[in-house]
Amino acid sequence: MEDPWEKSVTYSLNTIFLLFSAYLVFVMQIGFAMLCAGSVRAKNAVNIMLTNVVDAVVGSISFYLFGFAFAFGSGSNSNPFIGTNLFALSGIPNDTYDYSFYLYQWAFAIAVAGITSGSIAERTQFSAYLVFSFFLAGFVYPVVVHWLWSSDGWLSIGSSNLFLGSGAIDFAGSGVVHMVGGVAGFWGSLILGPRVGRFDAFGKPVPFRGHNASLVVLGTFLLWFGWFGFNPGSFEKILVSYPDTSDEGNWTSTGRTAVVTTLAGSTAGLITLFGRRLIIGHWDAIDVCNGLLGGFVAITSGCSVVEPWAAIICGFVSAWVLIGLNIMALKLNYDDPLEAAQLHAGCGAWGLIFTGLFAKEKFVIQVCDRGVTGVSRPFGLLLGGGWALIGAQIVELLAILVWVSITMGPMFYVLHKLKLLRISKDVELTGLDISTHGGAAYTHHDDDFPSSFADFIRLRDNES
Amino acid sequence: MEDPWEKSVTYSLNTIFLLFSAYLVFVMQIGFAMLCAGSVRAKNAVNIMLTNVVDAVVGSISFYLFGFAFAFGSGSNSNPFIGTNLFALSGIPNDTYDYSFYLYQWAFAIAVAGITSGSIAERTQFSAYLVFSFFLAGFVYPVVVHWLWSSDGWLSIGSSNLFLGSGAIDFAGSGVVHMVGGVAGFWGSLILGPRVGRFDAFGKPVPFRGHNASLVVLGTFLLWFGWFGFNPGSFEKILVSYPDTSDEGNWTSTGRTAVVTTLAGSTAGLITLFGRRLIIGHWDAIDVCNGLLGGFVAITSGCSVVEPWAAIICGFVSAWVLIGLNIMALKLNYDDPLEAAQLHAGCGAWGLIFTGLFAKEKFVIQVCDRGVTGVSRPFGLLLGGGWALIGAQIVELLAILVWVSITMGPMFYVLHKLKLLRISKDVELTGLDISTHGGAAYTHHDDDFPSSFADFIRLRDNES
Amino acid sequence: MEDPWEKSVTYSLNTIFLLFSAYLVFVMQIGFAMLCAGSVRAKNAVNIMLTNVVDAVVGSISFYLFGFAFAFGSGSNSNPFIGTNLFALSGIPNDTYDYSFYLYQWAFAIAVAGITSGSIAERTQFSAYLVFSFFLAGFVYPVVVHWLWSSDGWLSIGSSNLFLGSGAIDFAGSGVVHMVGGVAGFWGSLILGPRVGRFDAFGKPVPFRGHNASLVVLGTFLLWFGWFGFNPGSFEKILVSYPDTSDEGNWTSTGRTAVVTTLAGSTAGLITLFGRRLIIGHWDAIDVCNGLLGGFVAITSGCSVVEPWAAIICGFVSAWVLIGLNIMALKLNYDDPLEAAQLHAGCGAWGLIFTGLFAKEKFVIQVCDRGVTGVSRPFGLLLGGGWALIGAQIVELLAILVWVSITMGPMFYVLHKLKLLRISKDVELTGLDISTHGGAAYTHHDDDFPSSFADFIRLRDNES
Repeated sequence: MEDPWEKSVTYSLNTIFLLFSAYLVFVMQIGFAMLCAGSVRAKNAVNIMLTNVVDAVVGSISFYLFGFAFAFGSGSNSNPFIGTNLFALSGIPNDTYDYSFYLYQWAFAIAVAGITSGSIAERTQFSAYLVFSFFLAGFVYPVVVHWLWSSDGWLSIGSSNLFLGSGAIDFAGSGVVHMVGGVAGFWGSLILGPRVGRFDAFGKPVPFRGHNASLVVLGTFLLWFGWFGFNPGSFEKILVSYPDTSDEGNWTSTGRTAVVTTLAGSTAGLITLFGRRLIIGHWDAIDVCNGLLGGFVAITSGCSVVEPWAAIICGFVSAWVLIGLNIMALKLNYDDPLEAAQLHAGCGAWGLIFTGLFAKEKFVIQVCDRGVTGVSRPFGLLLGGGWALIGAQIVELLAILVWVSITMGPMFYVLHKLKLLRISKDVELTGLDISTHGGAAYTHHDDDFPSSFADFIRLRDNES
Repeated sequence: MEDPWEKSVTYSLNTIFLLFSAYLVFVMQIGFAMLCAGSVRAKNAVNIMLTNVVDAVVGSISFYLFGFAFAFGSGSNSNPFIGTNLFALSGIPNDTYDYSFYLYQWAFAIAVAGITSGSIAERTQFSAYLVFSFFLAGFVYPVVVHWLWSSDGWLSIGSSNLFLGSGAIDFAGSGVVHMVGGVAGFWGSLILGPRVGRFDAFGKPVPFRGHNASLVVLGTFLLWFGWFGFNPGSFEKILVSYPDTSDEGNWTSTGRTAVVTTLAGSTAGLITLFGRRLIIGHWDAIDVCNGLLGGFVAITSGCSVVEPWAAIICGFVSAWVLIGLNIMALKLNYDDPLEAAQLHAGCGAWGLIFTGLFAKEKFVIQVCDRGVTGVSRPFGLLLGGGWALIGAQIVELLAILVWVSITMGPMFYVLHKLKLLRISKDVELTGLDISTHGGAAYTHHDDDFPSSFADFIRLRDNES
Repeated sequence: MEDPWEKSVTYSLNTIFLLFSAYLVFVMQIGFAMLCAGSVRAKNAVNIMLTNVVDAVVGSISFYLFGFAFAFGSGSNSNPFIGTNLFALSGIPNDTYDYSFYLYQWAFAIAVAGITSGSIAERTQFSAYLVFSFFLAGFVYPVVVHWLWSSDGWLSIGSSNLFLGSGAIDFAGSGVVHMVGGVAGFWGSLILGPRVGRFDAFGKPVPFRGHNASLVVLGTFLLWFGWFGFNPGSFEKILVSYPDTSDEGNWTSTGRTAVVTTLAGSTAGLITLFGRRLIIGHWDAIDVCNGLLGGFVAITSGCSVVEPWAAIICGFVSAWVLIGLNIMALKLNYDDPLEAAQLHAGCGAWGLIFTGLFAKEKFVIQVCDRGVTGVSRPFGLLLGGGWALIGAQIVELLAILVWVSITMGPMFYVLHKLKLLRISKDVELTGLDISTHGGAAYTHHDDDFPSSFADFIRLRDNES
């Protein structure tokens, strides 16, 4: 690729692919905002949407200043734990990273805090939100990214020193993104405790319906749309050919990744529909939405390395993982308004294991080594690939669990002890919107004016 | 194109184009969901959104298992009526079809059931929905695709044995997608009968306003956005040059297709605005939205082969087609909550005829044969292209009408006879959401808690 | 680039980039519709959404017939003030402009009227809307485009006769788009006067809350998404290399432009959050949304020619510009329901000045002259680039102010004098939706039917 024109074409093609994928990942922020808004009670709708906007805004600053550096820095002090240069984009663009790569990673970073915000919805002080959001997107998450996705990372498939001779395959981040967000949310929600009235005196759950199913469906579909950027986009470059095939390359794999993603989500949605129908006796739209998202979360790790048929298994199991964890959460009086911990941490963990079971050798080598003949990599246990990959996947799972717990757990606990975490009972009963955001989300009646034509006629007649 | 690098570039470019177009077509599913939700009464909002989600989910499975095979299979038993291999994506990718092509076609398939769901809204049993959705996306629609868009199809412009020496030009599917969905909806709606109370004892229509105009406008705009994937994306490959021009190729035609689509929709919207203003005496937003969509449906067949000025004629007529059919539907006490049959079947049929009248020779040859000099094809009747094309278009129209009627009509009738089609009057009066989906879509007041600050203060004072 | 294959690749790449960017810019229309709808009172929601749809529809026709010609026409009568050929797309495609370019510009044109519609919301006659929308998108805006973005324009950076030896840098249109829309809105709103009841007898503002915060947040996020088409897309071609660099080209600059845009908006949103918290005492979601948009508006002019760190300064100042102008507007009893004049004209003007202060020499030369060594251009005053650029920026600011004022001001005034501008007080009190659009936007209760299960049971029991 010495020819300058060929270089230009290569850069242009890959940049278009990555930039538009980044834009799609950004749409997930819109999806989270709508999903969250619809899933809470009307009195807290402004609050949760504001936190979603603030996620994006705060994350943009903290990821720019140091998040990206912690994740992808690889200077002379380079180490497998945390990056040490590229702060505030100094040195960008360079031979490895262009702005489009930064933008793509930024869109991922702001998604993480969006996940966590669901778990702690309807009862968290706004300033606590600012703190955790900055800390999570700027430090906790980038460190995990460094482990898995930078070439220095100790678990990275691109490392020169492969962990267990394999490294963990977390292609688009069932673990890196979803488990991180979900485990953070779990600790936040646990330390906060359930919303007032969520469980009665006997520990029986009282249904707290979200206030707007249209927003839930809109948000779910927007997330689906955004996932087309999240999973296929994670190839980052589309113009990568597999030299030992005829006509295959990342273009083949990106397409397959999109198909695999769709099948996993659809299967999970369908199984949840029927599963919940059996359990609760009606066809529940919200359940299907969450089931669908659970399937997407689970397939995110292995989307690039499994066959379409395996995606159906992935989705099938993730539906039951989510249903099971939700039942358990109710039993344990754990209250997560968006089921975010169950969905993102639970299905995310399943996704890591799934990859260890079903990753196909050919695809693993294509993703890691452009499919060059003669290269050998551990692959899925059930396909005969041995224990190395599944081992690495489980180590990733545990490492994320421990790392997020020892960072975010204490952070939430300190905020709690300083009385900076939970809102007062008064505010919670009244609703955050009226109490702290200047008014309710919806004003369908204009009290100062006659609200219907009939009133108006009556008023006019009275006046004359 | 022997050079491997050139091959890689070609595949990458075409894959980017097709994948992102597929993502846009997927957005139409979001558009349908929001349009449908806003157009029904609040008590059925969850139901119709759930059906839209289920469309996507069920369609993903049935199209994967056999829909795609029926549509594009072309094995040794290949025939002009139905495909016979490629089940469950076996043999994909091959020289003809890559995953990105499958994804693009999948997004089309799930749209068809979305159209039909509008016609039968607010009164159909959920299980009936599951059945028809599976059958339509998995069998009825793919067969029509095979006729028109596979190289074996008896009506295909790519066939080696052109029907009437022409084949029918249904570029992005005014017939294949919209008429199929609309005719299916027509039979469903006819067999179901009107919603309770829609027509009074004298057959006079009672206005049933949709519950949320914001969702209708949101849905319409999202459909417009998605149509940019639907119509220009149907070129499937962008890197196709027209050797006998200077610098023209599919890149020129895709752009023109987007412009033509926009002009047809805009004209139809504008004419509907003024036309309905004359008829009903006010400026109606919902009418403009439906008019706009009618223009898009009509231009979908010929978008790639007509000049921009012709798009204005297309839109103008489709506005009146829609207005006329809506008046007729009311007269005949036909009740279609989304006007889906009128809009998709009616304007779709007009679109097929329009293409037969206005297709330009140069563009037809570019779309079918890369514009090679010396090739000759029948084109639009009014531009001097003879009767062959318009003949084929009318045959397509009739073939779709008959095929969908003899498959979907009996299917709905059997469900009806088995009492599996229509919900009970009780459920219909109460609303599907409370009866079968566990609760209403909206909960703006939290009954268990004081809903305003005033109440809260009062409560607190009483307690003390 | 003589090789036909290389030409095809170049055209395909650039067309994909520009078409998909155009689609994103179109999403801004959805964003405006949702933002506007949420920001007005429920009784006018249909009205403002209809005006947004009509913007797009009317703009499509007027921009096709002559808007594009006025903007980019450059025939034998070519002049620096207004284009004179290319009416109704005659002569398109040609060597300079393809359909994709037209589509991209169309998406910009319809956005302008969307801005203005916010300023005059809730009190303007619908027919006045049709007139101004046609005039603005078809004439006033295209003329400004011709000045700045056509190669003939007197302020264009591509002119052969550079104004002040520099030309004004308004890359994606802080001035061309946002100031034009905002200044037009200012005059409309000023001539209309405030909404009834907006200021009490003592001139004190009465809070008029928008009716739906979810729609405001949805609209804001969709605008953010669309801005990725608006700013990076304004490069129009991605396959443009900078010959004197290693491996840099428009692909580098597009990515940086997206990053710069994000940082400016995020900073502005964050500063507004804290600034308004200090001033009004609560965390206001609507303020953050508007602050974010103000940052985007301001960076739109210089997004391609400044460093990321400068974007933070841009956003910081634009937050205070918006806060300050809003305070001043209230003091002067100027009522703009969407803050559109303050936001788009105010922050847009700041954006023009910002570019004159912070444009970096290297980037200016890359954007204007492919970064060729030896070329020299005036650049940002504070970076040592002299007074020419800032001078040209201020001239652009003033020229737009004067041009839009002398065209749109009289137009609104004439409509006002002809009693065609403002609705009657009766209609305003009742709401436009019931009065002129056939009904309210929302119908959450179905009066003709029992609305809850309890009612239904009671009804049924009574019947028996």
